[in-house]
Amino acid sequence: MAATFTPDEFLAIVQLYAEHDARLDRRELERWPELFTDDARYTLQSRENADRGLPLAIMAFESRGMLHDRVYGARETLYHHPYSQRHLTGLPRVTAADAQGFEVETALLVVRTPRDALPEVLVVGGTRDRLVRTPEGLRFARRHVVYDNDLLPNSLIDPV
Amino acid sequence: MAATFTPDEFLAIVQLYAEHDARLDRRELERWPELFTDDARYTLQSRENADRGLPLAIMAFESRGMLHDRVYGARETLYHHPYSQRHLTGLPRVTAADAQGFEVETALLVVRTPRDALPEVLVVGGTRDRLVRTPEGLRFARRHVVYDNDLLPNSLIDPV
Amino acid sequence: MAATFTPDEFLAIVQLYAEHDARLDRRELERWPELFTDDARYTLQSRENADRGLPLAIMAFESRGMLHDRVYGARETLYHHPYSQRHLTGLPRVTAADAQGFEVETALLVVRTPRDALPEVLVVGGTRDRLVRTPEGLRFARRHVVYDNDLLPNSLIDPV
Repeated sequence: MAATFTPDEFLAIVQLYAEHDARLDRRELERWPELFTDDARYTLQSRENADRGLPLAIMAFESRGMLHDRVYGARETLYHHPYSQRHLTGLPRVTAADAQGFEVETALLVVRTPRDALPEVLVVGGTRDRLVRTPEGLRFARRHVVYDNDLLPNSLIDPV
Repeated sequence: MAATFTPDEFLAIVQLYAEHDARLDRRELERWPELFTDDARYTLQSRENADRGLPLAIMAFESRGMLHDRVYGARETLYHHPYSQRHLTGLPRVTAADAQGFEVETALLVVRTPRDALPEVLVVGGTRDRLVRTPEGLRFARRHVVYDNDLLPNSLIDPV
Repeated sequence: MAATFTPDEFLAIVQLYAEHDARLDRRELERWPELFTDDARYTLQSRENADRGLPLAIMAFESRGMLHDRVYGARETLYHHPYSQRHLTGLPRVTAADAQGFEVETALLVVRTPRDALPEVLVVGGTRDRLVRTPEGLRFARRHVVYDNDLLPNSLIDPV
């Protein structure tokens, strides 16, 4: 709780998360990697593995280029029943602030609604992220999504 | 992401959403229209129709007077099994700011709990709103709720 | 909505909630009471009783010491199937501000995920809290959690 940051900086953090979630939920997938740095790391991992420091993850990307590849895959090569996705990101907890940026954690709930079916929890968990200042504004240098629900619905198509 | 606004303005935006949700969730329905301008538009629409720009909506009101009518209907004419309702509004995304006010989008989850039954998702979706400055503070000039879940539980009584 | 407070104060409020939720969700239970004052009151109560002003509550603690006791109980004496817990706290609504602190209300969703099972809503409801300034920062002088779902899953182990 010792991190110091200004209301303006907090605003920028909140807007980055809101923008991130909106791009995914509106399925503007091609615009999603723009919110990451060139050498950003993206990891989607079970809580069990994350808490033990184990490397196994169901998605692990090590550059923005890999995010673009994933988006291409989600858009062009994966066929699936249509569904909508909606992120609810909790109040950001800023755990560290330095000259380059911030360490931020959030709670995360992603609800998926298949066409003509009831909504279901796709992901419940949290994120442990690194945000850095760039000429284009705040960007993710690391996004680490940790999900509590080991039993993910079996067709995780889009990133979260 | 180019919208510029101050931390004080963001605070006012957050408080408007929090107040809006609290009045509905506490069932202070008669006080709900006060948070809208005289000529406010309120629309509750499926995502499918919203994304195609189609007009069909399950609620569409074009003035604060119509909101009062709806509240009267919900209170006095609709008989239903008792339930509680709870809004979770996500981090507001401010997409435009001008002299009169703001364009704001939020994620939205509304959970309904019937008496003696398990909670269920009533609405999962988002809002696309216009907020304007008035002498009484920030007010909704437009609230457009878009729900992802086409299969709404069949008794949507109170507004969301 | 008349409460006046600064963006810096709002930031501190948001960070207190985020820190509170993180300590519980990471199961750093022993560090949870630190966020309360010595004579803090913690109540977990059904909405039905809360709205009628009835005292009956499933958890009611009247000091930080009692919170420590509860944590000890949750950690050492209650045996249960392993599960994860995740809080989503809504946008804080600041309803009063004075020289000592703030009255704050939030919506609250707590999702529990048992090992090898689907996530379920543990608590949906809200909080009605009193936050006070202390030399260590903002702390809870009162946390009153009100749950809409009368049918709580029958093993509420950790505090929420």
